[in-house]
Amino acid sequence: MNSKPVFIGVIGGGEASAEVERTAEEVGREIARRGAVLVCGGLTGVMEAACRGAAGEGGMTVGILPGDDRRTANPHVKIPVVTGIGYARNVIVVKSSQAVIAVDGSYGTLSEIAHALQSGIPVIGLGTWSVSINGRKDNNIITASSPEDAVEKAMASIKCL
Amino acid sequence: MNSKPVFIGVIGGGEASAEVERTAEEVGREIARRGAVLVCGGLTGVMEAACRGAAGEGGMTVGILPGDDRRTANPHVKIPVVTGIGYARNVIVVKSSQAVIAVDGSYGTLSEIAHALQSGIPVIGLGTWSVSINGRKDNNIITASSPEDAVEKAMASIKCL
Amino acid sequence: MNSKPVFIGVIGGGEASAEVERTAEEVGREIARRGAVLVCGGLTGVMEAACRGAAGEGGMTVGILPGDDRRTANPHVKIPVVTGIGYARNVIVVKSSQAVIAVDGSYGTLSEIAHALQSGIPVIGLGTWSVSINGRKDNNIITASSPEDAVEKAMASIKCL
Amino acid sequence: MNSKPVFIGVIGGGEASAEVERTAEEVGREIARRGAVLVCGGLTGVMEAACRGAAGEGGMTVGILPGDDRRTANPHVKIPVVTGIGYARNVIVVKSSQAVIAVDGSYGTLSEIAHALQSGIPVIGLGTWSVSINGRKDNNIITASSPEDAVEKAMASIKCL
Repeated sequence: MNSKPVFIGVIGGGEASAEVERTAEEVGREIARRGAVLVCGGLTGVMEAACRGAAGEGGMTVGILPGDDRRTANPHVKIPVVTGIGYARNVIVVKSSQAVIAVDGSYGTLSEIAHALQSGIPVIGLGTWSVSINGRKDNNIITASSPEDAVEKAMASIKCL
Repeated sequence: MNSKPVFIGVIGGGEASAEVERTAEEVGREIARRGAVLVCGGLTGVMEAACRGAAGEGGMTVGILPGDDRRTANPHVKIPVVTGIGYARNVIVVKSSQAVIAVDGSYGTLSEIAHALQSGIPVIGLGTWSVSINGRKDNNIITASSPEDAVEKAMASIKCL
Repeated sequence: MNSKPVFIGVIGGGEASAEVERTAEEVGREIARRGAVLVCGGLTGVMEAACRGAAGEGGMTVGILPGDDRRTANPHVKIPVVTGIGYARNVIVVKSSQAVIAVDGSYGTLSEIAHALQSGIPVIGLGTWSVSINGRKDNNIITASSPEDAVEKAMASIKCL
Repeated sequence: MNSKPVFIGVIGGGEASAEVERTAEEVGREIARRGAVLVCGGLTGVMEAACRGAAGEGGMTVGILPGDDRRTANPHVKIPVVTGIGYARNVIVVKSSQAVIAVDGSYGTLSEIAHALQSGIPVIGLGTWSVSINGRKDNNIITASSPEDAVEKAMASIKCL
């Protein structure tokens, strides 16, 4: 790991279909191949699949846990951060990332997308939420067509900052 | 104030048009008329207008502030809660409410809607966000047609719990 | 309640002896008699005794709860704030107070004393922690001789700001 | 780094004398030599000196930052965690550590010692706070005689869990 890697968040639900998990795992692999650090919520589903992908490529993984017990981290988290602040930790997952990739997603994922947009952190979506206000669609969620495209767009969005 | 009033959150942006502020103020008035306590983020825009409405009817208002300075509360907040935790306080605004009414809204409001849906707290919308995942609209945001209708639906949603 | 009351925190353990509870209750009564709002962690022991005292005098009580359930508030809390952030809420108890009175105390109380001293919020002690660094006693915790003296010193410390 | 290293926190003030910084740096070096991960608040003073020591030995360093800007991390932090929750992040520094070593210390350090004792996380002290309640000294802060002794005792305290 070089001294100043890029940090990319992967956000998504704690429960996911096999297809969604394959997508998340490929996102994780691609993040690691590019030498970036993967940041996530540290638990199951999309988070675990992404960490598994990154760890399989020798990448670094950070899991920002909601609870008080480090053993709740999935086995592919190398750096567990034990917050004890519950779902308020979603804000920390987002702020610790320079761009986030949303894969599918629960309401928790929607809160992370919103916090990222609020903080000016780029959001790349892979089959995730879209949002409208008063009938006008918000176009600030960047759509990706594949895991590779998502990571490419995440890296590019950081370079633009 | 009786000993066990109901707590209703009003969420919305810190900047709002005159029309949106009129709506928020009427929501605040109606909350106070029904003897409920108004909970909000304590700042300007929708939050201040709602507090002004509630305070004008003699209602109780709680402002959950993001920063370290109680003087950032709008003048109609009777109980300022000084969190110092930044926008992670959005989670506390939601959890301290038994139902939330979203009026218009910024990305911060979207994060509050998401946190409420995640926690099973009813969300009533007045000209606010709608959300879809993979093209399927999420119908858990209850639409209201007027401030009175919003408060009526908020009170009813709590009674149902 | 006038529009700008003073907010005084009462901090202490969730388990307390009958004698400590009598002290805390008298602190709560005295806070209410002076028209101040009592802020606390909302749970049992010193917190509940102080709230009981304040509520018995018709005072306002705010309980900043660590968990997700408003029903964990003691019955004398009029405004429960549901944080869901665990013991990180100790910081909010302190910041929401203009002075804090420590009665006896657990390690949680010690953390609150430290956060108050860090934030420049006056700390009045009634049979509570004293702290030394490298053998030098820290004299920033103001000692009180009785509940009345503690509240008097808390009010005076705020006036000095 | 093996897959399950131990995580040791180093806590201390953001301003420190040259002597205190030398101690903190040696603590950091010793943590890295033993293959443990150093966790800290990510800023200056004791935190920076400890990170410099660990990084100089090729160790891993995690900085849990209070603010919103990753550039506030000292240059030896390899994994910056951007919380945005202010000094409430002290709780996360502690919970993310399996034992903490306190070097000298500010009031923030005292709050971290208190949170650690509250959570049952061993605290090793090197010229830091001592605390008494009602005249009885609390003996749960383990005294160390040197940086090596502190890290030795921290490692041993974890093995005992």
